[in-house]
Amino acid sequence: MSVERVNPVPSDLDIAQSAVVKPILEIANKFGIDIDDLILYGTEKAKVKLSALNKSNKKPAKYIDVTAITPTPLGEGKTTTTVGLTDGIAKLGKKSACAIRQPSMGPTFGIKGGAAGGGYSQIVPMEDFNLHLTGDLHAITAAHNLCSAAIDARLHHEARWSDSFFEKRGMKKLNIEPTSVTWNRVVDINDRCLRNITIGKGGLGDGPIREAHFDITVASELMAILALTTDLKDMRERIGKIVVAMDKSKNPITTEDLGVAGAMTVLMKDGIQPNIMQTMEENLAFVHAGPFANIAHGNSSIIADKIASNYCDYLVTESGFAADIGMEKFFDIKCRQSGLVPDAVVLVATVRALKMHGGGPKVTPGRDLDSVYKEENLELLEEGCKNMSAHIKIAKKFGIPVVVGINQFHTDTENELELVKKIALESGAYGAVVTNHWAEGGDGAKDLAEVVIKACEEEHDFKFLYDLDISIKDKIEVLAKEVYGADGVEFSPEALSKISLYEKLGYDKFPICMAKSHLSLSHDPKLKNVPKGYIFPITDIRASVGAGFLYPLAGDVRTMPGLSSKPAYMNIDIDTDTGKITGLF
Amino acid sequence: MSVERVNPVPSDLDIAQSAVVKPILEIANKFGIDIDDLILYGTEKAKVKLSALNKSNKKPAKYIDVTAITPTPLGEGKTTTTVGLTDGIAKLGKKSACAIRQPSMGPTFGIKGGAAGGGYSQIVPMEDFNLHLTGDLHAITAAHNLCSAAIDARLHHEARWSDSFFEKRGMKKLNIEPTSVTWNRVVDINDRCLRNITIGKGGLGDGPIREAHFDITVASELMAILALTTDLKDMRERIGKIVVAMDKSKNPITTEDLGVAGAMTVLMKDGIQPNIMQTMEENLAFVHAGPFANIAHGNSSIIADKIASNYCDYLVTESGFAADIGMEKFFDIKCRQSGLVPDAVVLVATVRALKMHGGGPKVTPGRDLDSVYKEENLELLEEGCKNMSAHIKIAKKFGIPVVVGINQFHTDTENELELVKKIALESGAYGAVVTNHWAEGGDGAKDLAEVVIKACEEEHDFKFLYDLDISIKDKIEVLAKEVYGADGVEFSPEALSKISLYEKLGYDKFPICMAKSHLSLSHDPKLKNVPKGYIFPITDIRASVGAGFLYPLAGDVRTMPGLSSKPAYMNIDIDTDTGKITGLF
Repeated sequence: MSVERVNPVPSDLDIAQSAVVKPILEIANKFGIDIDDLILYGTEKAKVKLSALNKSNKKPAKYIDVTAITPTPLGEGKTTTTVGLTDGIAKLGKKSACAIRQPSMGPTFGIKGGAAGGGYSQIVPMEDFNLHLTGDLHAITAAHNLCSAAIDARLHHEARWSDSFFEKRGMKKLNIEPTSVTWNRVVDINDRCLRNITIGKGGLGDGPIREAHFDITVASELMAILALTTDLKDMRERIGKIVVAMDKSKNPITTEDLGVAGAMTVLMKDGIQPNIMQTMEENLAFVHAGPFANIAHGNSSIIADKIASNYCDYLVTESGFAADIGMEKFFDIKCRQSGLVPDAVVLVATVRALKMHGGGPKVTPGRDLDSVYKEENLELLEEGCKNMSAHIKIAKKFGIPVVVGINQFHTDTENELELVKKIALESGAYGAVVTNHWAEGGDGAKDLAEVVIKACEEEHDFKFLYDLDISIKDKIEVLAKEVYGADGVEFSPEALSKISLYEKLGYDKFPICMAKSHLSLSHDPKLKNVPKGYIFPITDIRASVGAGFLYPLAGDVRTMPGLSSKPAYMNIDIDTDTGKITGLF
Repeated sequence: MSVERVNPVPSDLDIAQSAVVKPILEIANKFGIDIDDLILYGTEKAKVKLSALNKSNKKPAKYIDVTAITPTPLGEGKTTTTVGLTDGIAKLGKKSACAIRQPSMGPTFGIKGGAAGGGYSQIVPMEDFNLHLTGDLHAITAAHNLCSAAIDARLHHEARWSDSFFEKRGMKKLNIEPTSVTWNRVVDINDRCLRNITIGKGGLGDGPIREAHFDITVASELMAILALTTDLKDMRERIGKIVVAMDKSKNPITTEDLGVAGAMTVLMKDGIQPNIMQTMEENLAFVHAGPFANIAHGNSSIIADKIASNYCDYLVTESGFAADIGMEKFFDIKCRQSGLVPDAVVLVATVRALKMHGGGPKVTPGRDLDSVYKEENLELLEEGCKNMSAHIKIAKKFGIPVVVGINQFHTDTENELELVKKIALESGAYGAVVTNHWAEGGDGAKDLAEVVIKACEEEHDFKFLYDLDISIKDKIEVLAKEVYGADGVEFSPEALSKISLYEKLGYDKFPICMAKSHLSLSHDPKLKNVPKGYIFPITDIRASVGAGFLYPLAGDVRTMPGLSSKPAYMNIDIDTDTGKITGLF
């Protein structure tokens, strides 16, 4: 233990700053990573070179995905559980590592707070984790916006110059249809007024004028590519396949057509190497890629998992949102691409969220919790456990044992915790364990770790939910009915026309990456617990050809958050004498 | 020598990739930098901690500024000379280091090419130098745009909520006048259609709608602050003083008022530490900050120079553009702020640029040079030497000896080089030396180095061009008459009203950072050689209150470049087998 635990538990930042951070070289050495495979960024973080992909001299690690029930907007402690479980497994004498996403800085300065875990289950230094880290997100922003500028530069020059001008320069016109451009610009900031803008308003020399949009950086297809790629060659090819617009004859225009794919890859050549940090209990933490969990697949990188798997016995990773979204995509998109076979799922549940599903009042960030969440209420809880049961069943469809991790709050009563355990086991969970890593670190997660280790030894038969060969419509229907519990799917005319376009273009063999609300099993965030008797609406379908998936939209999907009237940055400052950050969370 | 020289000289990238790059630790060790004062970023680059500011145990280094005559659009080799001179001084057995700017990635992918020097006088690895380096520019982009989002979030929420809503949250309304916002957004890409945009077009939830602008990152006031700050406390204070808009009663609104200054500083806390790399001849190269040379002061950081000065005998730095802009700002803004006293100026001249000033045809990037530039022509050359004489006189006004470095091209004739030397000495230069570092590295700059070392021993009496206490108008007039050679100054009504505003606000004691063309001693790029008999027009004046200067505009100043019809990125790619970048320059 490199941090002394006190009670009551201090703020995340105070805990993180009180932790003794070991040199990352020492941690890497403990796990057997060769110094020649490392690129140090100071003493506390490093990148691992891709040469480490081939350094396996043992059977791959047991592979555990941490997911959750449908959460409240506060989140139910998935990252904290991922870190706590990693440390808990290590407490049992196993070599244990985790692999998680790098967070966007937008929410860090907005409202969400840190993403490094919490309490005594954190990745440190949490300041680096939550800020620049080694610059991967910045590299994506730069590469993405270079492509955006390339599109508009092309529109600008093609409108001004003749065919022969381009021919003389060894180029030909692309004839991009300006209204077809789907490649937005990105910024890693919550900036609502960049959602819809008009660009090119400075006159002839500053054109073209068109309606355009900014997304947050983690929504970039480049982020999805970083998370799904397997090596430099594969990344170069994927980047070259990105479709950014259509030409006037409705043929796709790629980054390769623009001649910008090589430069984009150059900008991302350092970023492809995963970052390592440490948990507060000195276990190895891979932090790499953080694709948006709605329009993308919300899972950390394949490369990090593959490398990590070479150096530990148990690899704990986390998928975004709940089991109906992040976990499903973990299996059907990420594992399908990587070939790695998962051994167990940990489903994080909280009494708070289950009561909310049972009919408890709305939970709103920044407001005090209703008293129902602080006092025993077995009726609400039992009703809400149906949401947990549904998620257990979703996970089991993939043939993987599910352990429910009940993330304990000090207000939870013994009766409440017992009830959740009982219902979990009745619903088919392999185990259900109360875990208190937030207050107690790895010690608090030892019970959970024991059951998870046992679950990993179970005979299991991993399978995907759908075959890539079935039609786009069929894939979507499988998801809607078997995962979201809908009676059927309604496709908008826009969605139907996209389906025929994508079939024509050969994009119909991609997996599906559903863009839907994470606050409900359905598409509608207001429908809590287990919505039934509804039709799942697909309003549009888009293609991430480089990343290699289609993402149907089930309702409005926001790709650029906003800032509240009193954003988190107002509390953040630096002590100029010590250099210590204050108020980060 | 860590690179074998061949003839003809290969491309900059080929040379740089053939160089054996020493571990930066070894270079740092050779110069006496303690490993505890370093933060390694891999093995080839590092940041130096601010603790190194106080590690001096010797008299400060001799301090040499490399500037140039009025250049052609191709540039006359200032960075190459800076690197070559550094290596040349080292060849004479002295401890020699350079301190230069980090380039923007916009021009790297646009048209300009690399900024790491050229030929056998380069900083390596040139790929890192020209791409992300250690992420300082990305940090500025993030901090800058966080402030931009904060402004619009504030406008958005103040339009929707009552005074009492803000009071309840411990805040009060700022009443920002939307049309007064001067804080744009930034991106480190050449993207002309972001120059003038309309934001907030998504309806009530995505507001406010207003006209807005993007600049290139290096034009950010944060970049000027990074270059001028002296420590973390000073940076925090400067960032807090930035004026981003006015309120409806015409009072300045600062980042401190927005509550975002602390978070902006947090984002820049790593960036304040200067980066070290190496020349191809294994001398120490500081690379830190790169403010725009027109609306800002175009010089690398004070912190880098102060630290570098502790570890070498000769410190060679470079100021942006020609002596009338970058060098003048180096003296009157940077040295005034740092307290460091320069010992010599090297004025880079080329036969090519001098002939152009003498009446030679236009020089255009990407087009073949006219034959006049490849054959002996003493008449054009002699006439154009007037430009060199003017720059020598400008430098001498500051009381510093000037050595002309004639950057040799293989087409230059003996007669031509002799003529330039003769006129330089007649014009008051301390020395005039032909230098051939591009083809020969430090060996080619030994003659220049010898004269520069002697010049540094000369008795000299450094003085500023103007006193900060004189009026804004008087400062501008001193510059226009004594440096640019104008007969007088014409202030627009806008400029005059700014002068009275700034006097009222107490901004009149700042130095002046003139924003004017670098392609002429005057404001008009078409006026070559030594323009006479003209009035210098000031169209507007702006204040960088955090950086601590006023920047009057003499005509249109572009703060966002565009991309050509065949930008540099079209040639750039990566060899996915070796990871080597191709076509960077």
